[in-house]
Formats: sequence, C-alpha cells, structure tokens
Amino acid sequence: MVTLRKQYAVARPVYSEDSLAEDHEKVYRLRKPILDHLREYLTCDSKRAKNAVLSLLPIIGWMRIYRVREWLLGDVVSGISTGLVAIMQGLAFSLLASLPPSYGLYTAFFPMLTYFFLGSSRHISVGSFPVLSLMVGAVVTRLVPEDGPPANITGFEGLTQDQQRVLVASSMTFLMGIFQLAMGVLQVGFIVVYMSDTLVSGFTTAAAVHILVSQLKFVLGLTVPGISGPLSVIYSLEKIFVQITSTNICDLVMSIVIMLVVFIVKELNDKYKAKLPVPIPIEVVMTIIACGVSYGFNFKTRYGVDVVGKMVSGYESPIAPNMEVFKECAVEAFPVAIVGFAVAFSVAKVYSLKHDYTIDGNQELIAFGVSNIFGASFKSFAASTALSRTALQESSGGKTQIAGLISAMMAMIVTVALGFLLEPLPTSVLGALVIVNLKGMLMQFREIPYLWRRDKPDCVVWVGTFLGAALLGLDLGLAVGLGVNLLTVVFRTQFPRCSVLANIPGTDLYKDRKDYMHISEPNGVLIFRIPSPLFFANIEFFRDKLVEAIGFNPLRVLRKRNKALRKIKKLLQKTEDGVTEKGLGESFRQTTDESRMDVKELDQPSDLSGLPFRMDWRAGLPADVSVPRVDLHSLILDFSAVSFLDISALKGLKTALKELIRVDVDVYIVSCDACILEKLHSCTFFDEEISTSMFFPTLHDAMLHVRDKHEDDKSRGGGLTESKL
Amino acid sequence: MVTLRKQYAVARPVYSEDSLAEDHEKVYRLRKPILDHLREYLTCDSKRAKNAVLSLLPIIGWMRIYRVREWLLGDVVSGISTGLVAIMQGLAFSLLASLPPSYGLYTAFFPMLTYFFLGSSRHISVGSFPVLSLMVGAVVTRLVPEDGPPANITGFEGLTQDQQRVLVASSMTFLMGIFQLAMGVLQVGFIVVYMSDTLVSGFTTAAAVHILVSQLKFVLGLTVPGISGPLSVIYSLEKIFVQITSTNICDLVMSIVIMLVVFIVKELNDKYKAKLPVPIPIEVVMTIIACGVSYGFNFKTRYGVDVVGKMVSGYESPIAPNMEVFKECAVEAFPVAIVGFAVAFSVAKVYSLKHDYTIDGNQELIAFGVSNIFGASFKSFAASTALSRTALQESSGGKTQIAGLISAMMAMIVTVALGFLLEPLPTSVLGALVIVNLKGMLMQFREIPYLWRRDKPDCVVWVGTFLGAALLGLDLGLAVGLGVNLLTVVFRTQFPRCSVLANIPGTDLYKDRKDYMHISEPNGVLIFRIPSPLFFANIEFFRDKLVEAIGFNPLRVLRKRNKALRKIKKLLQKTEDGVTEKGLGESFRQTTDESRMDVKELDQPSDLSGLPFRMDWRAGLPADVSVPRVDLHSLILDFSAVSFLDISALKGLKTALKELIRVDVDVYIVSCDACILEKLHSCTFFDEEISTSMFFPTLHDAMLHVRDKHEDDKSRGGGLTESKL
Repeated sequence: MVTLRKQYAVARPVYSEDSLAEDHEKVYRLRKPILDHLREYLTCDSKRAKNAVLSLLPIIGWMRIYRVREWLLGDVVSGISTGLVAIMQGLAFSLLASLPPSYGLYTAFFPMLTYFFLGSSRHISVGSFPVLSLMVGAVVTRLVPEDGPPANITGFEGLTQDQQRVLVASSMTFLMGIFQLAMGVLQVGFIVVYMSDTLVSGFTTAAAVHILVSQLKFVLGLTVPGISGPLSVIYSLEKIFVQITSTNICDLVMSIVIMLVVFIVKELNDKYKAKLPVPIPIEVVMTIIACGVSYGFNFKTRYGVDVVGKMVSGYESPIAPNMEVFKECAVEAFPVAIVGFAVAFSVAKVYSLKHDYTIDGNQELIAFGVSNIFGASFKSFAASTALSRTALQESSGGKTQIAGLISAMMAMIVTVALGFLLEPLPTSVLGALVIVNLKGMLMQFREIPYLWRRDKPDCVVWVGTFLGAALLGLDLGLAVGLGVNLLTVVFRTQFPRCSVLANIPGTDLYKDRKDYMHISEPNGVLIFRIPSPLFFANIEFFRDKLVEAIGFNPLRVLRKRNKALRKIKKLLQKTEDGVTEKGLGESFRQTTDESRMDVKELDQPSDLSGLPFRMDWRAGLPADVSVPRVDLHSLILDFSAVSFLDISALKGLKTALKELIRVDVDVYIVSCDACILEKLHSCTFFDEEISTSMFFPTLHDAMLHVRDKHEDDKSRGGGLTESKL
Repeated sequence: MVTLRKQYAVARPVYSEDSLAEDHEKVYRLRKPILDHLREYLTCDSKRAKNAVLSLLPIIGWMRIYRVREWLLGDVVSGISTGLVAIMQGLAFSLLASLPPSYGLYTAFFPMLTYFFLGSSRHISVGSFPVLSLMVGAVVTRLVPEDGPPANITGFEGLTQDQQRVLVASSMTFLMGIFQLAMGVLQVGFIVVYMSDTLVSGFTTAAAVHILVSQLKFVLGLTVPGISGPLSVIYSLEKIFVQITSTNICDLVMSIVIMLVVFIVKELNDKYKAKLPVPIPIEVVMTIIACGVSYGFNFKTRYGVDVVGKMVSGYESPIAPNMEVFKECAVEAFPVAIVGFAVAFSVAKVYSLKHDYTIDGNQELIAFGVSNIFGASFKSFAASTALSRTALQESSGGKTQIAGLISAMMAMIVTVALGFLLEPLPTSVLGALVIVNLKGMLMQFREIPYLWRRDKPDCVVWVGTFLGAALLGLDLGLAVGLGVNLLTVVFRTQFPRCSVLANIPGTDLYKDRKDYMHISEPNGVLIFRIPSPLFFANIEFFRDKLVEAIGFNPLRVLRKRNKALRKIKKLLQKTEDGVTEKGLGESFRQTTDESRMDVKELDQPSDLSGLPFRMDWRAGLPADVSVPRVDLHSLILDFSAVSFLDISALKGLKTALKELIRVDVDVYIVSCDACILEKLHSCTFFDEEISTSMFFPTLHDAMLHVRDKHEDDKSRGGGLTESKL
C-alpha cells in the first residue's frame, strides 16, 4: 500500500453560498418549457420516421447484417433442438394451464410468428412459460371448475368444458396482450425496475411451489380438481393426501424413473458442458421412450394410466375474445402481463449484454402485446419465454430469431402431421418433466440465509414475496411483494441514523463524534448530520432527533421566555407606577389570567422592544423569572445526504428552523444540493426570519464563520444585561 | 448583508480513508446483540411497572395535576356546548352510516366512557366522524341494501332491516376496535406517518364529495337506495337526477334557508372570533327552530317531509358481534381502523403541541380500540373525533377530558329523557347541516394549483388519492393513495439528476461543471456525483448515466482489447514461427473462429503476461489492431448523497467498478458514509480488484492523490510501448 503523505493545502476566503455566487459567476440555465419538449417530441422528419420504423420492426436491423454463411447453420441446428424442447414444454405447461395438451403446441407456434418481426431480442425463445401458464390456469379453474357448474357467462352455452376453458384462456391472453401493448405504446416499460432481483427470486420460488403442487396429482395419477384463490396450495395438498391411497403405482414408478434419469443426465450435461457439442436432449429421449412403452404395453387400458389422448390435428379457426371473461379476469390479467414481460425482458437483457446489442423495453412490450393478441385469436395461451429454452437456443448456436422461427415450424409439423404419435404419452411423464425442471427455481431458497446476513430488508422482501405468492396466489402475492419492496425503500430512510459531528483536530474534516478517540467539539455549536432524504415519513423523526441532540425543546423555551418577558414588562410597569408588595401579587394573578389567553401569541418571536435594557437570556434574569438556559448559539445542519425534500418535509423543516431562530440559535445549512436550494426558493421557504445567508458550501466554511462571529461578539463585550431589577 | 472575507486556510496531509484511520484513532463501537436488547426490553422493576401503568392509564397523570378552581368551570362550560354539537352531529352522521338517528347518540356516549380513562389526549372530543360514518354506511348498505334481500348471514333471521343494519355497523365497529387494539399492542402506531398531509387532504376532499352526494337525497327529499362500491358516486348522482322532478319543495326550501343562515353565521363567528366569548351555536339554534316549525305546522303529514321519527328511548342491552359480518367486512374494517386513528391522532397532536403535553400514538390506538370495542357492544358505531367539535371543545375552555365526559352526559340525557323532542325534526335539516359543514374539506381543492407549482409528485399524490377515493370508494382509494404516496418516494430517487463536477479555480470546492462560467476540469479525470441513494430501481439508470458521462462502454472496450490481445499474441507467434503473408490470413480466420467461442472469457481482465513488451492501450497499436481509445485514467465517484445501498445496487456497482478497473481506469469513492463503508465490508464487496484504498474522505483529497499519481507516471516516462510490430 502506498502511504499518502502528500500535503493538502488550501487558502481561500471563507465562502457562504451567497458570497461564492458573487465571486464565481454562475451560468443561467434556461429550462425548456414543457410545450417545447412536446413540440420537439412531435416533430417529424424523414430521419425520425426512418428511426421509428427501424425501432418498430427490429427485424430490418438484424436482417440487414445477417451473415448467411456463418449464422444460418447455427440457426437451423439451434431451431431444431429448441423446437423439440418447445414441443415438450408446450405439452407439459398446458397441463399447468388446465388445458388440453395440443393448445400448448399452438402457444409454441403463433406468438413466435409476430415476435419474429417485432421483437428486439435475437436470442429468446418465445413460447410458454410455466409461471404464466399456472396463472392462466388459476383463472381457468376458477371460471370453469372441474366439478360444479362453470361461471355464469354468456358465450359458454353449447361449449364442452374444454372449449369453455380454451375460451377463458384465450380471452385472458388477449386481454394480457392488450395490457402489454398499451404499456408499450405509453412507454412505461421502465416499471419492471420495481421488480427487483430479490422480488423476482422470491416470486419464482413461490411459483415453483405452486407448480410442484399442481403436478403432484399427475405424477400420482390422481384426479384432483384445480383450486385457485388464497391458500390454494394448502387446500390442494390436503385433497391430494386425502386420496393418497388411490395412487396409480404405474404412474408413480414411471415418474420416479423419469425424474431420476433426467436429473442425472442434466447434472452430467452441466458437468461436461465444455466437452459436449450440444447437451443431450434427455427430455425428448425420455418422452419418446415413454410414448413407445406406453403404446407397446397399452398402459392406458392395462393400468388405467391417464394419457394425452386425442390431439387436435391441424389448426382451428380463430375466435373472438369474450368480453364477460375480460371483466372476470381483468384483475388477474394485469399481473400476468407484467410477469410475462418482466421475465422475457430480464432474460433478453442477459443475452443482449452478452452479444452486445441493444434491446428496447417498450418495443419488447409492443412485440409481446401483439404476439399475445395474435396468438390468443388462434387459441394459444399466454406466451413469454422460458430461461431453459432460451439458454438452449443460444448455446446450441442460435444467432437470430430465424432459430425461433424454425422451432415454431417444428411445433407446426407436430400439430399438423405427427400429433397422433404423442397420443399414448402418459400425463404423469409430462408432470415428472415439469417437476424435475423446478430444481433451479427451488434452489433459490438458499438465498434466504445469504440475504439475511447481508441485508435484512432485502431478506424481508424475499420472504414476504414468497409467502404472499405461495399463500395468497401469484397475482395477489406479486402485489404484496411490490408493496413490501417499495416499503423497504421508505423504511431504509425512515429511521435514519442521525449523528452529531465534530472536528478531527488539525484538519477540515468532520466525523461522527462517537467514532473517534480524539475529536474536538467547539462550545455552543452543534453540527447535526441528516443522513437521508427528508420526506413525509421521516420529518417528524428527524425533528425529534434534533431536539434530542440539542438537548432542549426550542418551542417550550420560546414560550417560557415570552411568558417571562410579559412578567418582566408587567413588573417594570408596576415599578414605574410605584406599586409595591401588593402590586406584585396582582401582577402574578394577571399572568395566570394571561396563560389562559391565546397560546399562539406565545409562539411568536420574542418582542424585545420597549425594554429599557438589552435582554440576554444566557445571562442573569430577575430572581423570580426562571427560563431554561440555552447554551447553544449555532446549529449547523449537514445537508449533504439530503437528496430530496417534499412539501411535508419543507413545512416541518421551516417550523423547526423558525423555532430555533426565535430562541436566538443561528442555523446554518451546509453542502446543500443546488437543486434543493432552487426548490426552497421556488417554494417560498425564505422570509424575514429564514434567509439565504444561512447556506454555506462546506462544513468548515460555516464553522469558521461561526467561530469568527462569536469571537466578534465577545470582543464587543456583548451578552451583558445592562440593568437589573 | 455581511460580506464574508475571512480566510479559509488548511494545511494537512492528503488523506485516504485508510490513512485517516491510521492517523486518527477510531473508537470500536460494540453493537449490542439482539438478545440483550430483548432482555433489557423484558426486564421488569417497580419503576418500569409504575411507568407502564401511568402510560396505560393517562387519566392518573392529568388527574393528579387537575386544578379544580381554575379548570373545572371551563370544562363544564365546554362540555355543555360541545355536548349540544355532539348530539346534532350524532344524529346527522348516523344518516351517513345509514342507521336510525338514535344510534348516533349512542356513539356520542359509550366510546367516551372508556376513552376518559385510556386516552392520552386531553382535548379531543371523542365521537362520530363523518368520513368513518360514511365508510361504515358503505358496508351497511352493501350487506343490507334498501331494496332487495340482505346478504345471506345467519343471525339476520327475525330481525327488522334496521336491526340488521345496526348489527352490521356494530360488528364492523367491533372488528375495527380489535384492529386498533392489536396495532396498539404491537406498537405499530408509527404507520400513520405514511399518511402524509397531502394524502389526508386528497382523501378527506374525496370523502367530502361522497358525503355531499349521500346527503343530496335528504336535502331534496328523495328516496334513493344507498349504493356502495366503485363508481358509487356517479351511480348515486345518476339515480338522483333521474327522479329530480319528484323533489320535495318543502325539504329543499328549508335546507337552502338553513344552509344560508348557518353559512353566514359561521363566517361571522370566524370574523369576530376575537370578540365573541363563545361562537354562536347556530346549528343548535337552527335545529331547535326547525323542530318547532316542523312540529307546529305538522310538516310530516302536510308536506310529506321525512322526519327523524320515533327515537329509541333509553339504552338497549349489549349485543355480541356477528362472526359472519366480520368475514364480510374484514377488508373494509381495516382502512376504517387506520383512518379513524390517523384523524384522531393528527387532531390530538395539534392540541398537545399547543398545550405542551405529550401524546402517545400507541396508547391512543389502545384507547380507541377499547372504546370502539366497548361502544360496539352497546350498538354504537365507529368513533374517532371530528376536528370541528374538538376545536369547539378546546376554544370554549375545555382543559381535560372532564369536558368530554360532560358532553357524553348531555348525549345520555337526550337519549334517556329528551329524545321525543327531536322526533319532528326533518332529516333534510340534518342533511343541510352536514353539507354546510363540508366547506372546509371542499376548500382543500385549492391545494391542487398550490402543489402543482411547488412539487409535482405531491400534486400527483393528492390527485391520485382524491380520484381513487372518489371513484373507487374510500377504502380502495386509501390503498391507492398509500401506494402512490410510497411510489413518489421511489420515483423521486429513481431518475436522479446525475452531474459531472469540476473544480472552482483557486478553491477546494467542486460544483456541477454546467453551472459555472469558469471552472477547471483536469485532463483524464472525471468526477461523477450520485445525487441519491442507490437501490434496485435506479442502479441501472445510474450505470447508463455513468457510461454516458465517461463517453465509452467499458465492457465493450474490454472485449475489444481482449480480442486485439489474442490477435497480437497470434501474430507474434506466427512471426516467431516465421510464417508470412499467408499466415496472416490464416490467423484472421482463426480470430473469427474464436469470436464464436465463449464470450465470458472476453470479459475477464486482460491477460498481459507473455507479451515481450509493455502494453499501453493509450499509445500506438499494431496497424491492423483497432481498439477504442480511452483517455480517462481516473474516475471519482462522489458518494456524499448515497444514504443507502441495497443488495441489487451493491451487485450493480461492483460490476460497474470491475468493468472500469479492467480497462485501467482508477476508481475512487469519496465522502462515503461510515455506515455504507461498513456494509460494503460485511457484504464482501472488496476483492483483489476492488480495494479499500479507493476511498477518500473528500473530493479534494482524491483529486490531489490523482494529480500526484499521474505526475509520477509522467516523470517515470511510463505510457510508452517499447516495441512495435
């Protein structure tokens, strides 16, 4: 380590903010009025139009630089391998959405078609995402429960239960698309910043728990109706354990075998990542094997295993969304829109950073909005991206969305031509594949001790979001998590650790007086550091701490002084009138009468006029007048960490300063941000009592000024009462 | 104004935080473990026990200092005049709660009995509050609508509609009391700080609109069923205007006359406040006149005017709350509990400040909780305080809750003996009195332009709360308002105005370089000020701004450098192997191959080992290697306004710093709070790349250090490549 023994030497005038501005000319920065901003925003020329088209159709950007020889092979290989996984996940996640499996294949196809043109990310694999599927599923089972009649919705008549469910899912997806599109057009994509990493981690862990519980019934081969709403996890578990004895052993054994094999091969994939050209597509392999075995041994009839069954072959004609479903699921569709976008955006950002291109949050919102609206018209359900699929697409060589398009084509081929091959596939296999993929999400539990050690509020956010989402349901849980997350920001600044500073001898540095062995505190001066922004939630706290630090309540002292003053004036008058002993008692009665008068008068600045002598509260007073002694003559407030002030804080601060100034304490504010100073001006903070001359650029400037002023006072021989009664 | 021309002279060593700690011994402050805090908290001795009793029964405190001769008369006078108003308001506000008027008298009586013992405020008048009454009324009309069957609740059988309503209101009040009591016991009274003045103002204005609309039907003499839920204001207005032709002219004329008279007399009261001993009780006078006129001319039968009618004489036996109602109104009872407490507490605080005694938020919660539970058992509804009544109680001479007790006795006398006198009173008179009292609340609309000019976010909170509460209903509106209020705190710090600082010549001061005409910026050094705390919502914004300020993307530069390095190494090898022209083409093919390799390697620190010369990226490079030139050698981050850092910000900051350090930019952090430095240590922020030696106490220290270091560099003749290809 280099020892620093260079000299720090400064010699300049002591500056207050006012004198600094006099010596150093400031630039007058004209603020552009809002109208000008708007005009500029609405101006249109050919360059802007071209940019707008380019940002609305990112495909033009990457198509122009497409290197066919270098990229196409990678895109094709990646598209095929991703396509296989997308098909598998489409089937499996449609179980989460409580829909027939073929609609999962639609979700792997339609949304991609529009995203191809509109999406600004070149690497994400658009399609189903387990958390979204589950959130859609919660609404589906609420409106069209397994047992019991469906919700009273016109448009449900004459439809089978599955058709009703598809209608609900696609209408909800349509609405979600509208929300996303609207947010994109309104340019509010920045709201995802409120979903901090901690919140997302807690939320996805809770989602993993939900998914795990929802798949248990498939793995065990039980028929359990889907449950939604608060505490659904607990109710579902209860229903499962009630009928645990009717577990289908064939399903269970098959699931366990598949889970074990897939788990082990995935670990191996991970371990030999460097050596394998492409990870082994174990899920696809296991699915094919399971299909074959199930078909060969006729699991369905022999063991009563639940299979995928008749797949819809080809595509169905588009449908219009149902307005009544919109009404029913509006509250739930909004969080789905947010979560879908947040996940896709965060995944896309990772790969855009890695491959050094820019993605645009608002354009992504538009792309997903349009894709979901388009997909919903063709009966696919909520699309976003899945991290695992995107990772595969990128690692197997995908460079652009050409890979995504090819994987969509794969889904199309299965839908149109090969769907029948999947018909004997047991649903327990799909459930097992979903569960084994939850490992990463469930591993996030390890964050709890990590966060607890490092940052308690963040840990509270994690646990709060997790508990909220696990117990209340994902939509409500997200709201709870967001609330807790925002509250922590307020909470961190609500009870700030205010400190009293003192000078480190021989320097111009001021530090917490409790932190240093040798530190010098000048008499009669207190330096109070406000370590956080001031706003409605902490201004009272700050005022309390200030009163604690200065050791007296200025308002109380002011009132006592004003009372004493009245008494003295009365006494003086009596003395002048030549009244003796008896008169004194009289005057006492009058003062008690006065105490009944308007208290407000007592809060005014002491009126020292009409006194035949100079009043000094620090010096001696008439024997029967007692006023608390105030030794403080100057208070310096360190504003360097005050990054903003709101109206409540401004009012509170003004009151606090006035109270202090009225008991003859000089208040100085140092290191105040230029913006805050400007704001104080515009909010008429200054008046005859509070002036701009109290602002100093540094603590040391203010300190030198104070020392100087009070040396003057002493030499002038001030501070003496010239007459005593 | 005093011109400050005192000298500021400092001469000391240049300090980094490390060397400062070496020179000036720090105190090691041991933090008390949580267990010790808990032990201390749970310790019990006689003094603590005495204090606990005193704080639980504030009556002991003020009873001991009660000055009978001076205070009693005031209390009695005040109690009688407040009692008259309390009776009036009780009757009127029970209309807001959609209950028969006599229950308003109960509310003026029962809650006061327990508050007398438990309340820490000596001046507030406990009883009905219009906003609370309205919130209770919303639930009452939802569960027991005027037309149509009541909610399906066991316990409603065999009860008349009014009895059902009373059951709902008292059960809800009971639950509200439980919430308040629980909050008091859990010591969470501080949550009212989240209800900033702005929020309360917007909320009460919306409540005034609700109240106005709800009273219109009485004033017009129409029968309109109470409507609750979102948009109820609009639906109610619609229903009123549909039947506006059936207005009862007698009701309307009487209301207008009363409103005019009361309004004018109130203005006079206000104007001649100083001269009048007690304000003219115009409301009481008008009520008595209206009663007399209505009785004398038999308004009820002659003009079909709706009158108060049969009053319940005396008290009814207590009832138990209904659990099913609890379930139905749990969501609504919570905001009622919060609002009731918040209003009472804020009013109580005003008077405690004025009369210089302390009130305790948690004790107030306990007092109101118990009072509401007690009152609800005797069929009274939600109690808090009304500002107007409290102001009257205090201004007419009330010194302690003796006045409150006397006003409760007044209500009792009317209930027990004089109720029949009020029977001919038209309800339109009560409605008119409620409306005319809304003036103050509705005048708060004037805050909108005031806030807009001063502080836009505060204005948004006001408007958001108002619109939310006016359109969605008071309970949901409160939630919306709280959300918006918390969001503004985040928002104010989310897009901070980051600035680049520069030195004011001849001083040690650094200010925004755009603000001053003459300012000196040293070459190769950038001073970046972070003007706000860093947390999940602004860390990305801050990183973007930093990249913008330094003018290059460090990650991109690092990758380009590492690519160039590989190329140079390849070239060197080829040169060693003696390969010429053709080999160069070969090596180029290989580099493109490499670009397909793992990108992660490119993000590692440049590996300069194995090169036969010292690499200097700022100097010349081989002709075919192009790397963006970086002129920046030092970055100083001003952390003085960073009042906290969360985990997301910590991670983001660490990444940003590493990227900079890896492209050979020295990073310094100055004016960092001691707490934050401590936190960075505990969160393993430091490693071999990021060291504690980067921290400096002031900007000038860091600047001197940088200047010094780079003069050394120049004199050592560094910065030259010793060999060229």
